Amino acid sequence: MSLQQKLDALPGVHPRPAETAGFVFNHTMLRVKDITRSLDFYTRVLGYTLVDMREFPDAGFSLYFLAYVDDTSALPGDPEGRREWLARQQGVLELTHNHGTEDDPDFAYHDGNSDPRGFGHICVSVPDVVAACERFEQLGVPFQKRLTDGRMKSLAFIKDPDGYWVEVIQPTPLP
Amino acid sequence: MSLQQKLDALPGVHPRPAETAGFVFNHTMLRVKDITRSLDFYTRVLGYTLVDMREFPDAGFSLYFLAYVDDTSALPGDPEGRREWLARQQGVLELTHNHGTEDDPDFAYHDGNSDPRGFGHICVSVPDVVAACERFEQLGVPFQKRLTDGRMKSLAFIKDPDGYWVEVIQPTPLP
Repeated sequence: MSLQQKLDALPGVHPRPAETAGFVFNHTMLRVKDITRSLDFYTRVLGYTLVDMREFPDAGFSLYFLAYVDDTSALPGDPEGRREWLARQQGVLELTHNHGTEDDPDFAYHDGNSDPRGFGHICVSVPDVVAACERFEQLGVPFQKRLTDGRMKSLAFIKDPDGYWVEVIQPTPLP
Repeated sequence: MSLQQKLDALPGVHPRPAETAGFVFNHTMLRVKDITRSLDFYTRVLGYTLVDMREFPDAGFSLYFLAYVDDTSALPGDPEGRREWLARQQGVLELTHNHGTEDDPDFAYHDGNSDPRGFGHICVSVPDVVAACERFEQLGVPFQKRLTDGRMKSLAFIKDPDGYWVEVIQPTPLP
């Protein structure tokens, strides 16, 4: 039995329904306390590009959409075209900023990894996890797990400004 | 000033560092109580394909990786090749199953949308959000927000077996 046949035979697994053709896992949304700190982290440290934002001043929040983009000049420049392009992508990170939380020293979001647990982490795959982690160290990024911690020496976890865990892996085995 | 120039000028936003070339937003991890129910939901209802799993019996947990795949016959069949392929993808959903939680009637994970808040939702983009939501209704999927609820008539939220919110959108404007 092939690897895929074994996976397809697990309890609960169904063949893909024809009605789901064209479905795309578009984005993951996290709430962030201080959008400036988060934009700095996700663009400067992790290299995401801010590709859209939407403001809802009456409701007191704004949405920021980030993705890995090699050439922003190829993206639609008009708001409607940008929105449609964005909705067709995979691997988008949506950050929700509820206005004013950044001014409350006692305010904090929950990272999901202590009780009550649920969400665990996001993960960025990089060509060279050792080089990436050395750079994160130089940039002063806090680590949840260094490559040298624990039994799994091929992966690390860093923390974003709200404490959300970001796993860092590379596709190929470490030497 | 173009749309992208406005986004790039927001406080905190930096140009993409050269050291982040090749970075990919690979996956989002959620813990689930009953993996069979979750695999049923994500494969049968949402059309994901289970593309890998990893068991850690000594530690009492297993990991399941799901993605939208049009042709599974094109995927590497050997475990190492599959793992490397998987780590290069965008838009992967990782489900963590801590063994035995499904047998505890009082056990529940936290969806992040009530206190303490943090993680908000994942989002699936579909070609026809009206048809998709009609199908979800027929399948008995619980809704957090139907298309007709609230002010935003172009998006819905359904709930997965753990109560995590799954936003459903379509790229093009509704008629």
